[in-house]
Amino acid sequence: MKKPNIVILGAGYGGLTTTVKLQKTLGINDAHITLVNKHDYHYETTWLHENAAGTLHHDRSRFRINDIIHTGKVDFVQDTVLSINPDEKKVVLENDELDYDYLVVALGFEPATFGIPGLLENAFTIGSINQARLIRQHIEYNFALYNNEKEKKQERLNIVVGGGGFTGIEFLGELADRIPQLCEEYDIDRNKVRIINVEGMPSILPGFDPQLVEYAMNSLEARGVEFKLGAMLKECTAEGIVIEKDGEREEIPTFTTVWAAGVRANSIVEQSGLEHNRGKIEVKPDLRAPSHEDVFVVGDCALIWNKETDRPYPPTAQIAMQEAEVCAHNIGVLVKGGGEMESFEFDNKGTVASLGHGDAIGVIFGDKKLFGWSAAVMKKVIDNRALLKIGGIGLLLKKGKFNIF
Amino acid sequence: MKKPNIVILGAGYGGLTTTVKLQKTLGINDAHITLVNKHDYHYETTWLHENAAGTLHHDRSRFRINDIIHTGKVDFVQDTVLSINPDEKKVVLENDELDYDYLVVALGFEPATFGIPGLLENAFTIGSINQARLIRQHIEYNFALYNNEKEKKQERLNIVVGGGGFTGIEFLGELADRIPQLCEEYDIDRNKVRIINVEGMPSILPGFDPQLVEYAMNSLEARGVEFKLGAMLKECTAEGIVIEKDGEREEIPTFTTVWAAGVRANSIVEQSGLEHNRGKIEVKPDLRAPSHEDVFVVGDCALIWNKETDRPYPPTAQIAMQEAEVCAHNIGVLVKGGGEMESFEFDNKGTVASLGHGDAIGVIFGDKKLFGWSAAVMKKVIDNRALLKIGGIGLLLKKGKFNIF
Repeated sequence: MKKPNIVILGAGYGGLTTTVKLQKTLGINDAHITLVNKHDYHYETTWLHENAAGTLHHDRSRFRINDIIHTGKVDFVQDTVLSINPDEKKVVLENDELDYDYLVVALGFEPATFGIPGLLENAFTIGSINQARLIRQHIEYNFALYNNEKEKKQERLNIVVGGGGFTGIEFLGELADRIPQLCEEYDIDRNKVRIINVEGMPSILPGFDPQLVEYAMNSLEARGVEFKLGAMLKECTAEGIVIEKDGEREEIPTFTTVWAAGVRANSIVEQSGLEHNRGKIEVKPDLRAPSHEDVFVVGDCALIWNKETDRPYPPTAQIAMQEAEVCAHNIGVLVKGGGEMESFEFDNKGTVASLGHGDAIGVIFGDKKLFGWSAAVMKKVIDNRALLKIGGIGLLLKKGKFNIF
Repeated sequence: MKKPNIVILGAGYGGLTTTVKLQKTLGINDAHITLVNKHDYHYETTWLHENAAGTLHHDRSRFRINDIIHTGKVDFVQDTVLSINPDEKKVVLENDELDYDYLVVALGFEPATFGIPGLLENAFTIGSINQARLIRQHIEYNFALYNNEKEKKQERLNIVVGGGGFTGIEFLGELADRIPQLCEEYDIDRNKVRIINVEGMPSILPGFDPQLVEYAMNSLEARGVEFKLGAMLKECTAEGIVIEKDGEREEIPTFTTVWAAGVRANSIVEQSGLEHNRGKIEVKPDLRAPSHEDVFVVGDCALIWNKETDRPYPPTAQIAMQEAEVCAHNIGVLVKGGGEMESFEFDNKGTVASLGHGDAIGVIFGDKKLFGWSAAVMKKVIDNRALLKIGGIGLLLKKGKFNIF
């Protein structure tokens, strides 16, 4: 009897957790497991804003996939997924083609630019190690250039962050910490540097408790962040942005626009022929695609409805890892032909948004509000917990965040 | 009786050594000493290639002028010299004007580009802290961009150093050490990076012993440096250079050309109305300008003939500091009206060229050849000696190079 082929696409939080869990559940004779990923490393997407600001080295945010998986049980293929053909049960890679019996789609997100002119071409996004370290270098390069030019260009010192959601605010917190260091490094007056947040809604951090939102804004403003709330980004060029607020347009000259205001599912999903809802697969409770029952979807490509709020759950590492556990269990059941498939239920452990080193806001245990140092410690606990779940104590000790003071 | 005004222009090796020596020689009632410098810090020009390569932080190569001078005895003015009017005994600064009774011109060098098209606009030079850290960032930024572009640009990974003289070779040595680190940092294959030296002469390091030259070339080639000797740089654009060798032209695509093949005296000297020889003042033995006996010139703006070789001494930190000692002595004699003026005689202590961390070549004690680790240690001894002479033991302990292993 032929062993079934399980193919997992993507080694982010969802895909890697699925793999790690499957290699524990399944014996070597149960199935042939293949993990496909573009890079030979996994990165902590929720840490990238620190790498982008330059407050944490990017090597702290990534680790080799082969150090985490059982290479005897899982074939790791470093390649880029080009397309999925679910009717023929095939995946086309840049350098290969794979057949599967069970597929796990965990291809993550890509930036959504909502058709804003020039944004795709001229703004940075915080979506990968490559992008994050480029942002760090781009900002630093502009600081280095500033004092080398006769005619000083303010564009080099204006940094615009588009979006006051989770990623945008966390990035601002790191920037606010980093900019004084860069000013010292390049002999630039801190007062000349502007850090500007542009958010279309009247408030930052939608869904967060208003008291915590106020705390966050105070913390960031005290460190020099300017907020342009209720302001729509109309255009982004290589030399600046145009925003509209209360019917008035304003140009902000800048060479550095970081777009953190929207993500969508990897567009391969939309192009795959799988039934989708605006690019995401609205999975069944067992996390299978409604149109193809040999395809599981976890992470940012899966759409799951939160019945309490009547809105989809936002894409987070937390939900992706919980989905991965259920997905791996259900594949185990199908492969081994015993036991019961599980239905996915999101267990919200809380959310903490970092505001830089030593400051954060958050809600845990359902309704416990946290801010300041204790929230910052909790944030690190959460980051460490993700490492522990994926890579065990070895990975935690290697990459964990223990600098709580 | 009015105290004479002594004005020193420039706080490089020559100007700062003159100042430090004068403040020891002269009492507070003897003269009014003013030191003018563009920045509020002195930098070790001979260390800038390390800052430019990124192997030494630029803060290690500079220190505050006010930490070294007696602020009770010397007025430090942070300003930029615009012109010298020796007939009216005036110096025009960007924000002020100064009268002098005795002037010390120690304005250093600027790059000489010999009219090569595009060089001034498109090449970097290693002439200041600002420029050095910009080169570091420029190289790193291009490495960061490399993996972020669909179409990989080899220009980002080709680094051209124009000139195989002292500065060029020392910079190549640091680059050869630094590039493997950058490749690891940005996930780039070391074999894709080219470090290319272009030198018009048939050999590098003119004037050095041929055995040592061969050692240096082997050391650099072993670490991946390519030499284009007997090759003339014909043009430099933002996208590359054109060289001509044996009558054939070759284009080398690069975004990074560092020009280290020529310096000239600060052009303010040429424009000052002082009698000059191709931009430098051919000083009398007491280091005064032949046309104006209240003007002393030290460092790269002074021309002193080496009678043994029948060529001018090359501009180095060593000769600048020796000149400064004589200059300060002679000013002391004039101000206090006693003693004898000294004539300058260059005392060659030897020359060591660094080839990166732990390797160097050099000649000391007249004819003792050194290479490898012992030369590298000697190089650090020389660097430390300059610190000791200018700023005493305190400065040496703060900025000295003690990492000899």
